[in-house]
Amino acid sequence: MFSFARRKRPTPSAQTAKDRLQILLAHERGTGGSPEADYLPMLQRDIVAAIRKHVPIGDEDVEVRMERGDQMSSLEINIELPGAPPSGAKGR
Amino acid sequence: MFSFARRKRPTPSAQTAKDRLQILLAHERGTGGSPEADYLPMLQRDIVAAIRKHVPIGDEDVEVRMERGDQMSSLEINIELPGAPPSGAKGR
Repeated sequence: MFSFARRKRPTPSAQTAKDRLQILLAHERGTGGSPEADYLPMLQRDIVAAIRKHVPIGDEDVEVRMERGDQMSSLEINIELPGAPPSGAKGR
Repeated sequence: MFSFARRKRPTPSAQTAKDRLQILLAHERGTGGSPEADYLPMLQRDIVAAIRKHVPIGDEDVEVRMERGDQMSSLEINIELPGAPPSGAKGR
């Protein structure tokens, strides 16, 4: 399992006004996997699109960092969410 | 920013035969955010669906762990991917 998974749960940073969503993706290629298999760019687009279905976010609210290695690639997406709860959430 | 983001990049575990994808989501509710705003269950469905658009994965290949707190909720999705590269990837 990826080592960052076994760390203790994320601790909230100082109180922030807005909701924040952080997504970390790690793709570990197995011996059988093909080096070209690159899921992260596709998943980045789809994940941001999925969030946009529920919450209005602008491009300026989304920060993406990607790192590619032979055996491991990782993607970090940080999103500042508006205050309102998602359209489908109980909060409405 | 969430503390788990500043850790060094995930280090690959021992060589595995299959590709593996790990997704960590953390939702930090700001002071202005509503406690009911719960994006993670929706995002879990959409992310797995997004992956399925590109890669055939069975329910048994997907492992999900979710933790909910007042200020912070986190979701961990671990997926074992088949060896073949995704349909849209360069590898084809």
